[in-house]
Amino acid sequence: MKKNVTVIGAGSWGTALASVLADNGHHVTIWVRDPKLADQINTKHVNEKYLPDVELSTHIVASTDLESAVTGKPIVLLAVPSHAMRQICRQLVPFLDPEVLLIHATKGFELESLKRMSEVIMEEVPVAISSRLAVLSGPSHAEEVVLRQPTTVVIASESGESMLRSQDLLMNANFRVYTNPDLVGAEIAGALKNIIALGAGMSDGLGYGDNAKAALLTRGLAEISRLGMKLGAMPPTFAGLAGVGDLIATCTSKHSRNWRAGYLLGQGKELDDVLEHMGMVVEGVRTTNAAFALARREGVDMPITTVLYGILFEGKDPRQGVEELMRRGKTFEMSYLDPNGA
Amino acid sequence: MKKNVTVIGAGSWGTALASVLADNGHHVTIWVRDPKLADQINTKHVNEKYLPDVELSTHIVASTDLESAVTGKPIVLLAVPSHAMRQICRQLVPFLDPEVLLIHATKGFELESLKRMSEVIMEEVPVAISSRLAVLSGPSHAEEVVLRQPTTVVIASESGESMLRSQDLLMNANFRVYTNPDLVGAEIAGALKNIIALGAGMSDGLGYGDNAKAALLTRGLAEISRLGMKLGAMPPTFAGLAGVGDLIATCTSKHSRNWRAGYLLGQGKELDDVLEHMGMVVEGVRTTNAAFALARREGVDMPITTVLYGILFEGKDPRQGVEELMRRGKTFEMSYLDPNGA
Repeated sequence: MKKNVTVIGAGSWGTALASVLADNGHHVTIWVRDPKLADQINTKHVNEKYLPDVELSTHIVASTDLESAVTGKPIVLLAVPSHAMRQICRQLVPFLDPEVLLIHATKGFELESLKRMSEVIMEEVPVAISSRLAVLSGPSHAEEVVLRQPTTVVIASESGESMLRSQDLLMNANFRVYTNPDLVGAEIAGALKNIIALGAGMSDGLGYGDNAKAALLTRGLAEISRLGMKLGAMPPTFAGLAGVGDLIATCTSKHSRNWRAGYLLGQGKELDDVLEHMGMVVEGVRTTNAAFALARREGVDMPITTVLYGILFEGKDPRQGVEELMRRGKTFEMSYLDPNGA
Repeated sequence: MKKNVTVIGAGSWGTALASVLADNGHHVTIWVRDPKLADQINTKHVNEKYLPDVELSTHIVASTDLESAVTGKPIVLLAVPSHAMRQICRQLVPFLDPEVLLIHATKGFELESLKRMSEVIMEEVPVAISSRLAVLSGPSHAEEVVLRQPTTVVIASESGESMLRSQDLLMNANFRVYTNPDLVGAEIAGALKNIIALGAGMSDGLGYGDNAKAALLTRGLAEISRLGMKLGAMPPTFAGLAGVGDLIATCTSKHSRNWRAGYLLGQGKELDDVLEHMGMVVEGVRTTNAAFALARREGVDMPITTVLYGILFEGKDPRQGVEELMRRGKTFEMSYLDPNGA
């Protein structure tokens, strides 16, 4: 059944999700702050800044007016940067339909508070709405989704009805949607994978091989699982699309900003130079800071995160960092399932 | 403490493990069938066929005489092809010390019987010895191990003492050894990952992107976990070095024979031509056959394996196969934890 859906945010991911929804025959409004971009989407059917060279559906209508974009809409999908989530929610709240299905597709933490996106949303939106919140995560480069390349994602929610409604809304022959009840795990896996991508890039930049990179990804996954469990996540989520899946897509893609930043650091560049060179936010750098703080607060051992923190913020030599990881004490592989283990 | 260790098999993996043992100061004998290769290792300290360009330690001594290589040795490490395991065990048995620690590092099934390597060994070796058996697995390209690139592996055994002795024997600053009690899971993950590597290559050969490959790896892991659980394995093993780790190292390396065979199939080549072109055994092809038979025998749903089987042995079109996977019914992500789920 065709639905009226509003996507908040016209970055590459918001635009790609709007395209999936349009492919499924829904009436899609995409809210965007920049009037020029709105105009471009409505008249030229293109988003030159974020997804150049892709023709968008004429069924996607852009609007800069939040009130009309949201009022009376049964489904609202948030795809805004993590640092903008709280402010956007505050602006949205007055216009949200009490029955609205809210889905968010934003990876990352609110850095000051170390809160997950759903925690931020739950603080800003009435509980009747936020209790039905669903999160979309998984291995999904926007550039491939708009080209209708085969993609799988996961919808996680504590509400079974929200999971199934979100799955119905988004699933099609190119975009396969799995459901998972572990909202906390999906959010943590999606946010923390950027740390491991940074580390994988660093390993490549240092000239290490496939064995080292596979070790980093696997043991990185073990330690983010350990932190996740302490925060209420379920271990299998980290072995799923939001965990392993997204980690693989991010760490093996040379297009990943996090991988590239790590690569340059591994080659001996200074962090400031790397960030300047990249010319944009490197999520993994900010996330390493947040994860290091969370691990300390929760008393969870995260050796890879700790080494990356040392390299990024305390001038530790990357090669020295890898040596420290290799020379750690003998370890039982599944000790990460014990939150107090190492 | 320095030990007398014999490695059975001088392929690339046996030779690499002999090098790790020599680095750790042990007295290493490597048994090899071919007198020319033995001579080359002993006089030129090189294994030109399997690891050219690498100088081997002078502390590795090759022998073609199984009796003297094995008799009285406290530790024997088996690194022979899976199809040779049973025959080698029969030849070894008369010479094994009753107290010997037996470790095997062979991935794959005995194809006729669909038995794991430890099942084969247990059928051929006295129970007093086989009950202490340990298996070595994980993401470890031999070419990188001999260059002392950082590598992590897992030692799995039902004997805690064997795990710890094996870890002590092999661990060093470049070769980090984790322990895991799940011998069955380590063997199944190590053998079945070749199927997924074949599928990943096929996805690349079809021109699909990082999203599709990440989906294949993640959902492939879910279905080999499901089969593994039915056969007695523990789910976390599949999220560890023998599972995810080895999968990543295999599927992201262009050096992988399985990846390359899949790539050629994805580009539309016929199986016979691919196998001829490769000029050697493609483990993933044989393993797909074995896994398909195991899944049927155990009544476990393995959609990716089934599609690959269809492409390899029943002339199914690869693109058609991917479409079938994408258009399956709606699925709960963790249903693989239910052995009867899909």
